[in-house]
Amino acid sequence: MRQPYYAVIFSSERTDEDNEYAEMAQQMVELAKQQPGFLGIESARDASGFGITVSYWDSLEAIQQWKANAAHKVAQERGKKEWYRRFSLRICQVERESFFEA
Amino acid sequence: MRQPYYAVIFSSERTDEDNEYAEMAQQMVELAKQQPGFLGIESARDASGFGITVSYWDSLEAIQQWKANAAHKVAQERGKKEWYRRFSLRICQVERESFFEA
Repeated sequence: MRQPYYAVIFSSERTDEDNEYAEMAQQMVELAKQQPGFLGIESARDASGFGITVSYWDSLEAIQQWKANAAHKVAQERGKKEWYRRFSLRICQVERESFFEA
Repeated sequence: MRQPYYAVIFSSERTDEDNEYAEMAQQMVELAKQQPGFLGIESARDASGFGITVSYWDSLEAIQQWKANAAHKVAQERGKKEWYRRFSLRICQVERESFFEA
């Protein structure tokens, strides 16, 4: 990817509620991919319910627009009410990157 | 945490090899916590073997010193030979953060 670009680190602990969480999470990934400035996304959640999702964006404006997306705002509200015990959200500028493949 | 600070995003896909991976990973977390400038670490790996670990540091110098730590270098080498199919490493400056707790 061209530099500089931005990473949004979303770390979260799930509740035990289901309420279509998996469907909504997948919908949000699909929607994010269609946003201007979207560069990529990766996600892992362990068996305890703790997960980290990192999305990558080409500008702070793109992140702001995604945050303000109407369908995403509905998901954010449901997240606070139903799906997450706690989360942290960090917006970062990527300064260096390296890759390894065996 | 005081700002600005730095995040190291380590995304990896594990091999099927065990070779004391869990023990080494735990040792590296304990060792990282003792390093100057260490602020925190969080990690999630899903059942497919894909994982994201994010560590937080108060300066680029602290990250550089941790990268150069002798025991960590041994772990890095074993990681490339035994434990990871591929990984990416990104060093980022955290610009904004927010937290939610239900």
